[in-house]
Amino acid sequence: MLRVGINGYGTIGKRVADAVRKQPDMEVQGVGKRSPDYVAVNADERDYAVYAADESRADGFREIGIDLAGTVDDLVAESDVIVDATPSGIGAENRPLYERHETPALFQGGEDATVAEVSFNARANYEEAEDADYVRVVSCNTTGLSRFLAPLHENYGVEKARVTLVRRGGDPDQTGRGPINDAVPDPVSIPSHHGPDVQTVFPELDIDTVGLKVPTTMMHVHSVNVTLEERPDDVENVTELYRNEDRVLTIPDYAGIDGAGTLKDLAQDAGRPRGDIWENCLWEESLTLQGQDLYCMQAIHQEADVVPENVDALRALEGELSSEESRAITNETLGIDL
Amino acid sequence: MLRVGINGYGTIGKRVADAVRKQPDMEVQGVGKRSPDYVAVNADERDYAVYAADESRADGFREIGIDLAGTVDDLVAESDVIVDATPSGIGAENRPLYERHETPALFQGGEDATVAEVSFNARANYEEAEDADYVRVVSCNTTGLSRFLAPLHENYGVEKARVTLVRRGGDPDQTGRGPINDAVPDPVSIPSHHGPDVQTVFPELDIDTVGLKVPTTMMHVHSVNVTLEERPDDVENVTELYRNEDRVLTIPDYAGIDGAGTLKDLAQDAGRPRGDIWENCLWEESLTLQGQDLYCMQAIHQEADVVPENVDALRALEGELSSEESRAITNETLGIDL
Amino acid sequence: MLRVGINGYGTIGKRVADAVRKQPDMEVQGVGKRSPDYVAVNADERDYAVYAADESRADGFREIGIDLAGTVDDLVAESDVIVDATPSGIGAENRPLYERHETPALFQGGEDATVAEVSFNARANYEEAEDADYVRVVSCNTTGLSRFLAPLHENYGVEKARVTLVRRGGDPDQTGRGPINDAVPDPVSIPSHHGPDVQTVFPELDIDTVGLKVPTTMMHVHSVNVTLEERPDDVENVTELYRNEDRVLTIPDYAGIDGAGTLKDLAQDAGRPRGDIWENCLWEESLTLQGQDLYCMQAIHQEADVVPENVDALRALEGELSSEESRAITNETLGIDL
Amino acid sequence: MLRVGINGYGTIGKRVADAVRKQPDMEVQGVGKRSPDYVAVNADERDYAVYAADESRADGFREIGIDLAGTVDDLVAESDVIVDATPSGIGAENRPLYERHETPALFQGGEDATVAEVSFNARANYEEAEDADYVRVVSCNTTGLSRFLAPLHENYGVEKARVTLVRRGGDPDQTGRGPINDAVPDPVSIPSHHGPDVQTVFPELDIDTVGLKVPTTMMHVHSVNVTLEERPDDVENVTELYRNEDRVLTIPDYAGIDGAGTLKDLAQDAGRPRGDIWENCLWEESLTLQGQDLYCMQAIHQEADVVPENVDALRALEGELSSEESRAITNETLGIDL
Ligand SMILES: NC(=O)c1ccc[n+]([C@@H]2O[C@H](COP(=O)([O-])OP(=O)(O)OC[C@H]3O[C@@H](n4cnc5c(N)ncnc54)[C@H](O)[C@@H]3O)[C@@H](O)[C@H]2O)c1
Ligand SMILES: NC(=O)c1ccc[n+]([C@@H]2O[C@H](COP(=O)([O-])OP(=O)(O)OC[C@H]3O[C@@H](n4cnc5c(N)ncnc54)[C@H](O)[C@@H]3O)[C@@H](O)[C@H]2O)c1
Ligand SMILES: NC(=O)c1ccc[n+]([C@@H]2O[C@H](COP(=O)([O-])OP(=O)(O)OC[C@H]3O[C@@H](n4cnc5c(N)ncnc54)[C@H](O)[C@@H]3O)[C@@H](O)[C@H]2O)c1
Ligand SMILES: NC(=O)c1ccc[n+]([C@@H]2O[C@H](COP(=O)([O-])OP(=O)(O)OC[C@H]3O[C@@H](n4cnc5c(N)ncnc54)[C@H](O)[C@@H]3O)[C@@H](O)[C@H]2O)c1
Repeated sequence: MLRVGINGYGTIGKRVADAVRKQPDMEVQGVGKRSPDYVAVNADERDYAVYAADESRADGFREIGIDLAGTVDDLVAESDVIVDATPSGIGAENRPLYERHETPALFQGGEDATVAEVSFNARANYEEAEDADYVRVVSCNTTGLSRFLAPLHENYGVEKARVTLVRRGGDPDQTGRGPINDAVPDPVSIPSHHGPDVQTVFPELDIDTVGLKVPTTMMHVHSVNVTLEERPDDVENVTELYRNEDRVLTIPDYAGIDGAGTLKDLAQDAGRPRGDIWENCLWEESLTLQGQDLYCMQAIHQEADVVPENVDALRALEGELSSEESRAITNETLGIDL
Repeated sequence: MLRVGINGYGTIGKRVADAVRKQPDMEVQGVGKRSPDYVAVNADERDYAVYAADESRADGFREIGIDLAGTVDDLVAESDVIVDATPSGIGAENRPLYERHETPALFQGGEDATVAEVSFNARANYEEAEDADYVRVVSCNTTGLSRFLAPLHENYGVEKARVTLVRRGGDPDQTGRGPINDAVPDPVSIPSHHGPDVQTVFPELDIDTVGLKVPTTMMHVHSVNVTLEERPDDVENVTELYRNEDRVLTIPDYAGIDGAGTLKDLAQDAGRPRGDIWENCLWEESLTLQGQDLYCMQAIHQEADVVPENVDALRALEGELSSEESRAITNETLGIDL
Repeated sequence: MLRVGINGYGTIGKRVADAVRKQPDMEVQGVGKRSPDYVAVNADERDYAVYAADESRADGFREIGIDLAGTVDDLVAESDVIVDATPSGIGAENRPLYERHETPALFQGGEDATVAEVSFNARANYEEAEDADYVRVVSCNTTGLSRFLAPLHENYGVEKARVTLVRRGGDPDQTGRGPINDAVPDPVSIPSHHGPDVQTVFPELDIDTVGLKVPTTMMHVHSVNVTLEERPDDVENVTELYRNEDRVLTIPDYAGIDGAGTLKDLAQDAGRPRGDIWENCLWEESLTLQGQDLYCMQAIHQEADVVPENVDALRALEGELSSEESRAITNETLGIDL
Repeated sequence: MLRVGINGYGTIGKRVADAVRKQPDMEVQGVGKRSPDYVAVNADERDYAVYAADESRADGFREIGIDLAGTVDDLVAESDVIVDATPSGIGAENRPLYERHETPALFQGGEDATVAEVSFNARANYEEAEDADYVRVVSCNTTGLSRFLAPLHENYGVEKARVTLVRRGGDPDQTGRGPINDAVPDPVSIPSHHGPDVQTVFPELDIDTVGLKVPTTMMHVHSVNVTLEERPDDVENVTELYRNEDRVLTIPDYAGIDGAGTLKDLAQDAGRPRGDIWENCLWEESLTLQGQDLYCMQAIHQEADVVPENVDALRALEGELSSEESRAITNETLGIDL
């Protein structure tokens, strides 16, 4: 049993904790949490051992009835591996702590690629993490792009990819984030950082990305263009390719699914925990071939798609199972089969 | 076993179906559905017998692999009672169908009060439904107000209630609805229809309501003022009153819950199906006494709060259990105990 | 000619500068500006002398072709009076600077009442500013409430006012501000600071306010209830009262104006600079009497309503004209007569 | 003097009326209006003769003090040319009326290309309208794309253009339109109709477009990629090209303009009527060359960019002035020179 410590129990951390708990070969050693708020209460109710990130707030935890299991330092000491899911930038600050305890760690996509030896996507480069101690699971957008590009790369070759990322302004609980009535080029400069980030996974791939943020909270939407090296006989072949991908949900035309609202509804109807959509959501009708050029639109649930990737990254670090084996277990335990 | 037919399997209908299925004394006979879309697929996957609302679209169901159990006419014939959850206005058109089959029915709050003999809220006037054949479960806003007012009415007397309803523009799946960047008085005239609607439940209560709609999809928020007949000794007494209400969730100050996003997150963390919040969500910190005047803010999950009310209304129609007995079973089976 | 320096040339400052320039008895000495951006370019194009708030950025101004007239220190020295329109909190920090130069100053509503001797609204308490050196023009919401309450106070007496403020999340240019999909109680505690702020203008008035913020950028909307001491014979009398107020725009029923979008459109059609609406916008149809209780909804253009108030406050400080005289000139020069 | 009748005085119609009135060689014969609302009042206050589109509502106009000049039939008879600015689809229904009176007419982009002999953009194909009686001014998006592509087409050749259009959900006054919290592929199929629409102006140009709509009201944003036939020496050459275009506003890096909110603010600061931005707004920083591939982002004020095009189309129909001559007059009179 791999004892996994989750440092940072927020949007990503709590989802990873629940996913880890469902694995037959892993257990959650505990979670690191800063604030004694409703999320901490939930951690406690789920019987996760709670470790204080900030000792000075220990009293606050006690007042709401949470017995702390220790500090984050203890958590690192007691875990075989850490999943760092603290806010963007804090992960890098935490690395020395993990090193001190000689505890390997995963970092999230909010960190620079330099935080770790390898930038990871289960479908695309699982093997590269096998000898690493520190691995970064790439961001929600980069994960979505990697999954999308992998089958094209393998089957037809990618001459060039051009992607416009229409990004949600903030997560549903982040009421402080905008924009309210604006579609903001972000960054204004092109390519956005997402292109180079994809290249941490596919080093040679020619990709340019353009980013905007808009007043939505539920999913990113990608408008994708890929000039293929070899032209598929028919777009149906490409559709079939994606229907066979485990972490791509192809949306059939009849479904009446027009955006993130209906997708979330679908996931909730299916009984998914937190209405999470771990897969890329690809509109079949949008898949279009114009000569060598493939177009489509896909939606990415930013809070969820990296979760199975974290689980697989833990196994990749362990080095005992192959990508296919790990993904099969992860998919089965989470219920990735809509 | 009460055989319940659900006519209209949309936002409300699918939630009521799932809730009915969880009751020890009821079963779902089947659901009436118009369009062969992802929602229909979900009904089928949940093993609900699907009855066509529109026979001309039967082929569409077949094409996506759904075996129809019949038409809505059959559903009405085969059920002991119908929950009509069709869109606003269609319910009234359906009543003759239910009468023809002598099948009692519940209607939803989108219908005028005249559609049924009784307008119903489990906490406030359960008993009135006992001799009725047709009962209307009041709307999400009226349900939220009835639950809020009942304990005040009983304990202190309500001299006058004044409520501003800051309403969500549409449900998360209704992408056609606005407004996008506007807070629109709706209706402009005062009182809005919500006040008179509360009076269908509390006939003598003096209440004025003002309505606006805003660019949100997740919850309504009520700004409530009640001039009480008798002044509570302390606001803490009132808080305690609500802490003891089964369908009011009192939000403690430390929780860090600032709106619908965090509330939904909380419900999802708690493993609630669809992240549903069946209770009124009342900010404890907002509860304030100024002389005889009580103030507060509460949020209402429009998709969810009427669901337990429908279940109780079915039992009220049956006339075998009391309000307390029915609500206890409903609460227990759904898991209303956050 | 009163030489007016505007320190802080942002949303409020640029509007006040333009309004001051239109007055026969005032001139703009110059404007204090921090960043060499498009707003600075506009100040220069409008031939306002630009003074640097932050000397270290002087080069930046030069690079975009703006000749600085000096520093803010110079501006204060060269002006008869300063309008401080810097961001909330900076005004108070600036007061010692104004004192050092013995230059009287106006502050804005983002400052605490303690920043000045008097909190000011032209309609309600013009005279109180006459002997003051430092005057605070109350915030957009408080200005809107003061204008609304003054005629009721004078004609019927206000027993108690209860107001829910549905506030815009940010100004149109503030893309960093949320919320995106939430109606957030803000503050959660009741009364919000707006009630006490109204009492800086009407010291004895009994008023409770409740605040929320929503995903809109164009106007605040107030849901107002006032229990009057004396009941008007008819609501039409009240409507007539507001039709006669200079800074209240009563929206007739036939107009088809449903919110901030159409109001802005109306102001733009009327050729208003920046589409500004200096008046409270009151829906006539919403004005309703229930016994002693008056209800209505009004919209407040947060960027604009305080502008004429600043102009009048300058005259009040001077002490030469009466409120009626000043307001008449301000209204005439700005074109307040929709 | 060309007597121009404007049929349909809404978002586009009123702007075209004001622009026509500013031309030395044209006058507004009158405007056709359906509803006696605030927009009608404004038409009357601007001294436009108002003609009823719907005679049965003539009384409504009278009640609000508007003397009708006749019916739309009269307007067509009395005008030399009609600008039809009725809602999408109504234009085509109106064409027989214009034919009956042998009055040439302009239609807007909401109509199918088949409504007219020529689809028009002043910069790209002015001459084609010279022998036509019926001309369609292409939509806001197509106008924006045509202006952007023309200089590339002329200078480097366009091998292929790929554009993602992030479209505003509705105009600021359209409170009924969504989406509220969703970025909706619209249409899901690719290419969207915008690509073929550009080809009505540039028949041979290879262009694929992808459309989404988002919860904003102020501007469309285009993410543009163009594979050029000939590679520019440097991106600065391309920037310079656009700086020299009359109807492209290049946004410099220092300006601090991040989206539609600041752009509108800029236009309002500049004293533009209705804060209108007639030009494409192109972020200089976004202009990027990657091999033969040019990328950038531009914002399009949907309410405004077609206005100068309508004026030029009127002159093109007349056949007396060249494109350069007409555009120079239009630009000068409107003040297109930010
Ligand atoms: N939210 C998303 O959509 C998303 C998607 C993919 C990747 N990511 C990445 O995942 C990481 C986490 O993001 P998130 O959205 O879950 O953040 P979050 O703010 O929701 O959660 C962060 C958690 O870390 C805790 N924390 C803060 N400082 C800490 C510290 N010094 N030590 C320990 N814990 C601390 C917070 O209390 C909180 O529980 C970031 O790198 C982010 O870029 C986020
Ligand atoms: N959505 C809410 O927030 C909410 C809250 C409380 C009450 N209500 C009320 O509940 C009722 C249902 O609303 P909803 O939001 O669930 O609507 P919905 O549109 O989500 O679902 C309605 C369902 O009825 C089906 N339908 C349509 N016409 C039909 C017909 N002629 N016969 C049978 N089925 C038909 C539709 O296919 C759909 O499945 C309305 O009265 C509404 O006012 C809705
Ligand atoms: N925006 C509104 O809706 C609104 C309405 C009423 C009152 N107010 C109040 O008006 C005041 C100004 O608000 P605003 O919205 O115009 O702010 P803003 O941010 O739009 O403008 C502030 C200006 O001050 C400048 N500035 C910043 N720091 C400075 C300094 N140290 N010295 C000199 N200038 C400095 C900025 O560059 C900017 O030009 C605040 O007190 C605010 O609360 C704002
Ligand atoms: N709004 C935009 O952003 C925009 C941009 C470019 C092009 N367009 C196109 O311009 C045209 C007009 O659009 P709009 O946004 O100005 O519409 P609008 O709804 O704002 O205005 C339409 C006007 O036509 C009037 N009208 C309606 N039916 C009529 C009839 N039968 N006869 C005469 N008048 C009638 C209405 O009262 C209204 O005044 C459409 O083709 C649209 O696609 C609109």
